[in-house]
Amino acid sequence: MTYNFFAGPAILPKPVLEKAAQAVKSFEDLDLSILEISHRSPQFVAVMDKAEANVRSLLNVPEDYAVLFLTGGASSQFYFTAMNLLGENETAGYIDTGTWSNKAIKEAKLFGNIKVLASSKDKNYSYIPKDFDIPSGLKYIHLTSNNTISGTQYQEVPDYGVPLVCDMSSDIFSKPIDIKKFDLIYAGAQKNLGPAGVTLVIVKKDVLGKIERDIPTMLDYRTHIAKGSMFNTPPAYPIYVSMLTMEWLLENGGVNAMQKRNEEKAALIYGEIDRNPCFKGSVHADDRSRMNVTFLPTNEAFVEPFLAMAKEARCVGLAGHRSVGGFRASTYNSMNIEGVQKLVDVMQAFAKKHN
Amino acid sequence: MTYNFFAGPAILPKPVLEKAAQAVKSFEDLDLSILEISHRSPQFVAVMDKAEANVRSLLNVPEDYAVLFLTGGASSQFYFTAMNLLGENETAGYIDTGTWSNKAIKEAKLFGNIKVLASSKDKNYSYIPKDFDIPSGLKYIHLTSNNTISGTQYQEVPDYGVPLVCDMSSDIFSKPIDIKKFDLIYAGAQKNLGPAGVTLVIVKKDVLGKIERDIPTMLDYRTHIAKGSMFNTPPAYPIYVSMLTMEWLLENGGVNAMQKRNEEKAALIYGEIDRNPCFKGSVHADDRSRMNVTFLPTNEAFVEPFLAMAKEARCVGLAGHRSVGGFRASTYNSMNIEGVQKLVDVMQAFAKKHN
Repeated sequence: MTYNFFAGPAILPKPVLEKAAQAVKSFEDLDLSILEISHRSPQFVAVMDKAEANVRSLLNVPEDYAVLFLTGGASSQFYFTAMNLLGENETAGYIDTGTWSNKAIKEAKLFGNIKVLASSKDKNYSYIPKDFDIPSGLKYIHLTSNNTISGTQYQEVPDYGVPLVCDMSSDIFSKPIDIKKFDLIYAGAQKNLGPAGVTLVIVKKDVLGKIERDIPTMLDYRTHIAKGSMFNTPPAYPIYVSMLTMEWLLENGGVNAMQKRNEEKAALIYGEIDRNPCFKGSVHADDRSRMNVTFLPTNEAFVEPFLAMAKEARCVGLAGHRSVGGFRASTYNSMNIEGVQKLVDVMQAFAKKHN
Repeated sequence: MTYNFFAGPAILPKPVLEKAAQAVKSFEDLDLSILEISHRSPQFVAVMDKAEANVRSLLNVPEDYAVLFLTGGASSQFYFTAMNLLGENETAGYIDTGTWSNKAIKEAKLFGNIKVLASSKDKNYSYIPKDFDIPSGLKYIHLTSNNTISGTQYQEVPDYGVPLVCDMSSDIFSKPIDIKKFDLIYAGAQKNLGPAGVTLVIVKKDVLGKIERDIPTMLDYRTHIAKGSMFNTPPAYPIYVSMLTMEWLLENGGVNAMQKRNEEKAALIYGEIDRNPCFKGSVHADDRSRMNVTFLPTNEAFVEPFLAMAKEARCVGLAGHRSVGGFRASTYNSMNIEGVQKLVDVMQAFAKKHN
């Protein structure tokens, strides 16, 4: 058993992988691979319907919101959202909590006025900004709910009195959320949802079509709403595996159970970080991510030997991002508590040897 | 054995599906699924490198052309190409050979002057226009090399003295092509290349960056060239399966062998259409597609019983597109001659019974 702590593409549940492999060989009773059936076949239409239903069920998505499966990743949603929601003379507020927020800000600037309301850049993005003014007249406020690189996360959805647009790529389905606080949520699949190649969008339908701009057909959310994400051939297999992952989530208690499990994993690993003399946390304790646990060695010389010892114990993907250094353990939904315990065991063994 | 004649997503070679299923369970010696490994891992970087190398090798792509693996399908390339290549005051010529050309024309109009140089709409797109004037000053001429719906195909790459931009989604890798005649080629994967979810682009590098336009980062080909199609997380699995399919193509004689095989299949099926009293071709004989063989019943009452008899023989996906009617047998690279022979057998048995 290898424990994969990479920030993404992330691990998927074993039962999902079993079914996903079987479908590549032969899907249902078709004697054809899922990779080679028509996306208009009743069998694949059922997959799409189920994928949407699973999102709605897991997150209690109200009827006035559309659920879309698109491509291009969150990186495409950085411009896609502003292109569809923000008029040339309108203003949107953005909160800068790191690399991904910054990219969203850069792309949105092509389409309207962007005001950066707050930033934690002053402390290398080690906290979530909380105290800042909200100017009037904002079309929306954009935030990145979880920051994979620095390891910070909004513990609660903030209430600014302005609709939110949120990059939820790395913590969607990890806990319940109140969809009604958002005009739009987007998420690349490859953390808690499925394999790379599909992007989930949840959008309040009546916020669309309110701006004057010529938008290419494929870049207009309304195209995809009208055609149930099948205006053109969708990324069929990534959607199928995402559907299976959501089925697994539902069978395992849904987002409430995931939240409980993720809190247990976080308590275990952060507890060890705080206790262990060889390691220390790298972000403000109140803003610690439940998805990407970043931590630093108390002595720089510990980095290589700790990674080596972890690898020996088959814990891989623990090197921190170069902008933070140290270590990062990504503990998405599919990481079980045994994996986190294994990592904690390595940390304790390391301390015994090196302290 | 089921023979899948659907227009796409199309069948893939059996050995490819075997390897593709295995990699979902466990990839190489990693004890991890290919769906859950980092796209920055050496193992996946090797997949990307090999995918590009295979394209270059199969099509003899010169060094001054980039090979990209993007998302969004050909439908996204309809605007993407014009957005990157055509200045606001420049003019491009488009040839209208059916539904897909039409969509390309519609999207390109958002970015510059579009002149439709010729159209076969007058005869329900049953031929490829050949005799028309080429005005001077065109930035490029866009064509759809194979028309999946009507069943027409350019037999040779036309020489207009103007660089070509080509939607080659449904016949790429089916025969050799001279890349140097094109500024840009794009192709959704799901016919001859791999599963849905990845789009191949081959672009001459020095035609980029020549226009004044603010382009979102993800919609600028240069972004993806600079990062080897890994600016953001790529659609890893569709790329992997495409790489395997190209490996299979190379092992089976490359595009020269495919051309030979595709010609044999075409001779077999079109020969039967011309001979059989129950069927007739639906397009101009010179323009018949080697990928999507469209044909009509000589009596409308034949449609349902023929489809039923074919299904009995496990030949599926033969219903014609509603805009043409009758039948369509898609005979992409992975369809073997036995499958086509099976269909011909059914046609002959049908004629015996009904004529």
